[in-house]
Amino acid sequence: MDNIMDRIPILKMGQFLLVTIQVDMYDRLAMALQDDLTTKIVEHNSKGVLIDISSLEMVDSFIGRMLGSVASMSRMLDAVTVVVGMQPAVAITMVELGLSLSGVRTALNVEQGMSVLNGLVAHEVEGADYDSEE
Amino acid sequence: MDNIMDRIPILKMGQFLLVTIQVDMYDRLAMALQDDLTTKIVEHNSKGVLIDISSLEMVDSFIGRMLGSVASMSRMLDAVTVVVGMQPAVAITMVELGLSLSGVRTALNVEQGMSVLNGLVAHEVEGADYDSEE
Repeated sequence: MDNIMDRIPILKMGQFLLVTIQVDMYDRLAMALQDDLTTKIVEHNSKGVLIDISSLEMVDSFIGRMLGSVASMSRMLDAVTVVVGMQPAVAITMVELGLSLSGVRTALNVEQGMSVLNGLVAHEVEGADYDSEE
Repeated sequence: MDNIMDRIPILKMGQFLLVTIQVDMYDRLAMALQDDLTTKIVEHNSKGVLIDISSLEMVDSFIGRMLGSVASMSRMLDAVTVVVGMQPAVAITMVELGLSLSGVRTALNVEQGMSVLNGLVAHEVEGADYDSEE
């Protein structure tokens, strides 16, 4: 069933990247995703990463850690990660299990995640030092 | 492995919908996708559907037909379907197998597909009859 897929596609949307997690994660797939994502962030000079987990019905500690490390890696490369689309039941289970997505921003859906990223990027530009004063 | 996923997520991006096919399609999944997609087109009044197949390493006649019927259904609901991200090897194989995606538009990637859709939607608005002349 799953032999057609050994990489999760990463879609470029303007200055952001979009990843939709649809399959159960395992070590090798998570490593491939981290590799591909960091490469693409550098390649496209992306400022943000959106990770859609709306089809996940469970987020265990492995996926939680994976999302955390993706966020940390992206941050090193000056990109913000926003996890979107978490199902209510997933949020409940995660809290009950004592899991937290520390260091990871969340938003309700892709559109809201996109607007969070746009806000952050705009804010960053605003807060930057200007040399020219045109 | 695949029991976590019985639906393919459909992401709303402005007036378009984005579907990323990452897993092997089978009957029930294809039916669920058609159901969900037509429901969402109506719900969000979407004008276009982007289907990303960049992670498919093979498009057989089943998937080809599925893409064709999704496009036809969307057209009934006044939405245009663009299939994006086809791998070169897939294009070669499809031609060799005598398969064609008749009635389906294609674009290289999501961004180009989005601009095709924007162009079509803008054109449609332009071509429409105007009553007011502001």
